[in-house]
Amino acid sequence: MSLVRVHNFSISIDGFATGEGQSLDAPFGHAGSRLHEWFFPTRTFQHMLGKSDGRVGVDDAIAGTWDVGIGAEIMGRNKFSADRGPWENEDWKGWWGSNPPFHTPVFILTHHPRPSVEMEGGTTFHFIDATPQEALRQAREAAGDLDVRIGGGPTTVREFLAEDLVDQLHIAVVPIVLGRGERLWDGLEGLEERFKVESVTAPSGVTHMTFTRP
Amino acid sequence: MSLVRVHNFSISIDGFATGEGQSLDAPFGHAGSRLHEWFFPTRTFQHMLGKSDGRVGVDDAIAGTWDVGIGAEIMGRNKFSADRGPWENEDWKGWWGSNPPFHTPVFILTHHPRPSVEMEGGTTFHFIDATPQEALRQAREAAGDLDVRIGGGPTTVREFLAEDLVDQLHIAVVPIVLGRGERLWDGLEGLEERFKVESVTAPSGVTHMTFTRP
Repeated sequence: MSLVRVHNFSISIDGFATGEGQSLDAPFGHAGSRLHEWFFPTRTFQHMLGKSDGRVGVDDAIAGTWDVGIGAEIMGRNKFSADRGPWENEDWKGWWGSNPPFHTPVFILTHHPRPSVEMEGGTTFHFIDATPQEALRQAREAAGDLDVRIGGGPTTVREFLAEDLVDQLHIAVVPIVLGRGERLWDGLEGLEERFKVESVTAPSGVTHMTFTRP
Repeated sequence: MSLVRVHNFSISIDGFATGEGQSLDAPFGHAGSRLHEWFFPTRTFQHMLGKSDGRVGVDDAIAGTWDVGIGAEIMGRNKFSADRGPWENEDWKGWWGSNPPFHTPVFILTHHPRPSVEMEGGTTFHFIDATPQEALRQAREAAGDLDVRIGGGPTTVREFLAEDLVDQLHIAVVPIVLGRGERLWDGLEGLEERFKVESVTAPSGVTHMTFTRP
């Protein structure tokens, strides 16, 4: 059975995975880029930008596992777009340009389905109004024998965790107090009982936590 | 100038330093002893119990700095007692027996002052109704050239952090999701700007975070 995995999911030490006030210019609201500064210099991220350099080390080694063996992604509407409600602009094709870094089918959870969009490089965006279980069924079918990644945001990751659908969870804890935004852990009391938890710190200051099934 | 320090202050990954429902039998409410399991085996804690053994390593090395150079402690009423409001029982002398591990003056913040209590081993409990600044003035006077420890609970630590009175803060992040209780970080947005933050993980699973003035 293919696994369900979460990777490179950054939170502040007070548990926020995104800030307040998402907009077109601020995908993470008032958090700005602070939750992801550790990620940008890595070779993994630089490769996504088509560059050949980038920093190696603990951050990169862990970050680089994000697409190994992944056959599909599921993401929430708010990871794809700053809009809410019915689509005002169906020309919007995500924050990632014409060749997004996913290179697989991507299932976007929304109460407002729209036609699928095929991008360059193997990414296809499908817009579905579905429960976590139904979305996972569709993603697994698209992924074949490969794993499914839950790409975020926090509401989507939390829903899949609450339904006990996640097999591997990588959290990068960034030592900042964000104060407001969307919390990851709400409603997940006792989550650790379902996982083996391993932590390692990186010179960037981030603590990487890996939750796996025991 | 003597420093103001916080040591061995455990929180869950969702930021709770104590659980819900404190009582005489459950000083940390529904958290039970889960926030402090890493601490109990250390030589530092075993010495507090008068035992000569105990585990060494990262947890112990960091835990053991808690009383070095400390001349007084300030703690909140709820660290001292599960009661609320006027004292129903002035015979209560804390959770720590006749010879508490502090061995210094201890200033207990309460809206209901009562006479000081001298314990064995150099600990004296003083009950004061004071602002953080005034409590610190009294504790510094008692501590002489030595440092002052803010002993907790979360409300007290948070108040001193909010007033920017803390010079060193050691947090032990325990990989559990507590779900409810008293949060440490509330209202402290941007706290990291005032500190240099260093993290290290221990084989116990705990991540020790040290905040110091840059």
